[in-house]
Amino acid sequence: MKPIIRDARPADVADILRLIRALATYEREPRAVRASEDAIHQTLFGAGAQVFGHVAELDGSIVGIAIWFLNYSTWTGRPGIYLEDLFVEESIRGTGAGRALFRALAQEALRRGCARIDWAVLDWNRPAMDFYRAIGGRAQTGWQPWRIDGAALEALAA
Amino acid sequence: MKPIIRDARPADVADILRLIRALATYEREPRAVRASEDAIHQTLFGAGAQVFGHVAELDGSIVGIAIWFLNYSTWTGRPGIYLEDLFVEESIRGTGAGRALFRALAQEALRRGCARIDWAVLDWNRPAMDFYRAIGGRAQTGWQPWRIDGAALEALAA
Repeated sequence: MKPIIRDARPADVADILRLIRALATYEREPRAVRASEDAIHQTLFGAGAQVFGHVAELDGSIVGIAIWFLNYSTWTGRPGIYLEDLFVEESIRGTGAGRALFRALAQEALRRGCARIDWAVLDWNRPAMDFYRAIGGRAQTGWQPWRIDGAALEALAA
Repeated sequence: MKPIIRDARPADVADILRLIRALATYEREPRAVRASEDAIHQTLFGAGAQVFGHVAELDGSIVGIAIWFLNYSTWTGRPGIYLEDLFVEESIRGTGAGRALFRALAQEALRRGCARIDWAVLDWNRPAMDFYRAIGGRAQTGWQPWRIDGAALEALAA
């Protein structure tokens, strides 16, 4: 049986948080998730929400998620989709759920006039890279991600 | 004299595009910019615009820009600022314009409850890295950026 891909609904929030946590565990950061059900509900379904979710549903259960938002490139002059989290339960990997989620995002991207889909992968995650390569993705070389947060962010603002 | 940092206004669009082009030239991709004045106007000032700009103004001239939008982290459960483009004209580098633009972003981040500011730097751009380190930023290791676009994006959607 093939999973159904559909837009996330408010009733999915507990499952979405469960899969966000499962992804963090897979990424070896099981305690990294500080988001709550309330926060996710507000982010995805609150007034003016700009973060979106697709889910993969199999036999009435949520078995996969894609959480994304729009970004923007001054070079293309167009928006793009940034895929924040993609996760498919281990037990159904290989059934096409990941590809189906990505296809739904690609359709969403074309519908919205987006130039591309971007995401990031942990540099040891070979199975994910193999999958991304198989659907037409490619690693971006030459760019280094940087961040400022916590006390450094507050000091800069002061 | 110190530059003034303020929100971008519609009258700044031509200068913003000029500095986006100057940045692309500095990044050794002078022909990469496909954005037009109309596209930038629409993106920054159209109905429901979700992309924002700060400018640095010195003696009535726009000498620096920061173009940014909000992203979202499922781990923090909070939005963040993604800094798409930061550029300061070569002639006024070292006057504090870059730091002042970044400080305005940090203040914006705290006001909006953002957990962090993220951006990317070309891996040969040592002067930029030195500046980012000086204001409290740090390179994110372990993550690889990936992308799908063009014909591969269309094939995936089909």
